[in-house]
Amino acid sequence: MSSHVCDVLVIGGGIIGLTAAWRALEAGASVVVLDPSPGDGATHAAAGMLAPVMEAGFGEEGQARLGTASLALWPAFADALERAAGLPPGAVGLETTGTIALAYDGDDLVALRRMLALHHEWDLGSVEISPDEARRREPGVGLRVAGAAWVPGDHRVDPRAVRAALAAIAARRTLVPRAAISLTWADGAVVGAIDDAGTAYAAGTVVLAAGHASASLFAGAPTRPVPGTTLRLDADADRAPAVVVRGTVQGRPVYAVPRRVRPDGRREVVVGATSDEREDDHLTRAGDVFALLRDARALLPGLDDAVLLGATTRSRPGSPDNAPLLGWAADGLYLATGHHRNGILLTPLTAAAVDRALGVARSAEPRPSGVAPASVEAAVEAATRFANPRRFADPVLSAAGIPHGAIRGGTS
Amino acid sequence: MSSHVCDVLVIGGGIIGLTAAWRALEAGASVVVLDPSPGDGATHAAAGMLAPVMEAGFGEEGQARLGTASLALWPAFADALERAAGLPPGAVGLETTGTIALAYDGDDLVALRRMLALHHEWDLGSVEISPDEARRREPGVGLRVAGAAWVPGDHRVDPRAVRAALAAIAARRTLVPRAAISLTWADGAVVGAIDDAGTAYAAGTVVLAAGHASASLFAGAPTRPVPGTTLRLDADADRAPAVVVRGTVQGRPVYAVPRRVRPDGRREVVVGATSDEREDDHLTRAGDVFALLRDARALLPGLDDAVLLGATTRSRPGSPDNAPLLGWAADGLYLATGHHRNGILLTPLTAAAVDRALGVARSAEPRPSGVAPASVEAAVEAATRFANPRRFADPVLSAAGIPHGAIRGGTS
Repeated sequence: MSSHVCDVLVIGGGIIGLTAAWRALEAGASVVVLDPSPGDGATHAAAGMLAPVMEAGFGEEGQARLGTASLALWPAFADALERAAGLPPGAVGLETTGTIALAYDGDDLVALRRMLALHHEWDLGSVEISPDEARRREPGVGLRVAGAAWVPGDHRVDPRAVRAALAAIAARRTLVPRAAISLTWADGAVVGAIDDAGTAYAAGTVVLAAGHASASLFAGAPTRPVPGTTLRLDADADRAPAVVVRGTVQGRPVYAVPRRVRPDGRREVVVGATSDEREDDHLTRAGDVFALLRDARALLPGLDDAVLLGATTRSRPGSPDNAPLLGWAADGLYLATGHHRNGILLTPLTAAAVDRALGVARSAEPRPSGVAPASVEAAVEAATRFANPRRFADPVLSAAGIPHGAIRGGTS
Repeated sequence: MSSHVCDVLVIGGGIIGLTAAWRALEAGASVVVLDPSPGDGATHAAAGMLAPVMEAGFGEEGQARLGTASLALWPAFADALERAAGLPPGAVGLETTGTIALAYDGDDLVALRRMLALHHEWDLGSVEISPDEARRREPGVGLRVAGAAWVPGDHRVDPRAVRAALAAIAARRTLVPRAAISLTWADGAVVGAIDDAGTAYAAGTVVLAAGHASASLFAGAPTRPVPGTTLRLDADADRAPAVVVRGTVQGRPVYAVPRRVRPDGRREVVVGATSDEREDDHLTRAGDVFALLRDARALLPGLDDAVLLGATTRSRPGSPDNAPLLGWAADGLYLATGHHRNGILLTPLTAAAVDRALGVARSAEPRPSGVAPASVEAAVEAATRFANPRRFADPVLSAAGIPHGAIRGGTS
């Protein structure tokens, strides 16, 4: 049995794990990332909506505030990432051009207006617009849409491009394509892990970022798979949306997230997403593809002419309350998992939390202009569920729900 | 410029070209097959319905007779092919278990009954059955189906397995993965071809079996691409049809062709097919996938739970009248193309035609039991459009339509 020693062992090579690895390298740590299929988890299916506003539901203001805080960090995060990876500006596809929300029928419009009232109460900036106005902004919007809203606070990024940039920085030096099969404990502290080849890794800190599989390594990270399917379309730019278009069709949510127009005048559009409670597999159901296409073409009929490049089914890391499992869960064990539908959105906030956890100098952080350092601190604090290493043993963690009050104070 | 000499040069490595190659090898000829992407043409998308009955439309009795004649040859053809390829019996997936035809709504039922009246007139054996009887035979049939028929004369085979068997015989020895770019002529006869690497092939006979691309090599083979999409599903055997199920849903045709159940209790089901008049590409339209799934699940709702393995879009070789372009079109040039929707069905008849053209001894032919040699002769004659080498120069061939009378006399 061979063994390795490193400062930080990251379990999971998705967008969250590689972000943690990047921040650890930035802090001067020696880093190993374990992932048996790097880049083939939830990140691979993610559309890249940065949607703290439209994803915010009733009773989830805290969640909305976390998302808004993380979205504010995205421009500086993208910029620092592109520079660190040696990529040109814009390479990770961050586009802050807003979102059009659509209501297909009258019932959908009632629901949309209820959502807009909530957004107004929370001061999130969304406004109802007429279907004609929606078509003026986005000519592909179908003629049978009952209502619309302009959501200036929701944006997009390309998750595969983000992950590729992170891999260019971190993974080449540090990635081991093996699965961690257990953590190594000593005196109540995590001191490393063992992989499926029997190799032992001794680490000062283990970052558990194994997505939905995290629970299998540490019961205090109660993740579960939430499989979802997205479709990748390739469309004439004239027939594809230029901004994120989302909505509900007879109560069923659907979205279309465009990538940038390529030199050939076409662009990729990601349509999503289903959400299931079942075991993890990578198998796409015919009925899910049917349902996504049916609802997407109800809002954007021109998508019929798009080329269907493929369907991707991967499992989001669900947590009991849909909020991320972030923080020191034991001495030596930092959790960065359970991001559910919001992994891409919450990546910069996770990076900031990891920076603090690993003691990255403030001056080395991606520093957002126009975001006060104090509000970053507050958001990190609000997002960090396990502030106290001893707390992972608290009996509440083994209960079905984790109390929200402590982490849902809001950041405003 | 290098050069090769062979008895028979086959242009095209799909099911038709490889069948011609097999028959030529069987006749003792030296053979070269040219195909830049062997196995990636219409054969790759074909579902493998052997449906002379349900594909027969008004005014196409001749076509139906050709199909029926070729279907009668399929068992002997499959048997000979499996033996020649060293495969176990049944390897090419021939199943003569009949077809259930469904009518989704009342209008579809009116059309189905009109079709059944025609089949009755032609003595094809189809009978109307109740939707309950259809569900008794095939439990997956949806509850909202208005009518049904039992079509004992339509069967199925696995085109990819057929092609693989042919490739095992012929292609290993003879296949050159290059495109033919032109035929070589001398004194009004075809004497070979040149490939895209500049290699010249001198051949006693050139068999043109390049599918929809045949027209680009020989203007007397007026083929055009007729792109179509099929979907491959993988389903629990309990939730998938056991026989071919086809029908119309509000006038739109759709079919589901099952493969055999695998040891894991699942089976593949091919759903098809769209039919377009456009340039050849291999790009699957989102709207086509939507339409196929919508109609297939209307007839077989259980398909929703099937895994969507993928979509395949390839171009059938259309001819001006949808009948194959078969026969000596010039001295040295044998056409075997333009099979449109019926390439798989008409493969054994094409093999018989090639046998006669190349002088394969009757004793070496796949000999169907229960099919009189005379009726094979008559079918081959009926299918052979260009009986006379000089006829390819006939002005009618350059017109949009080719007269049907000469080849549509029927074989009964």
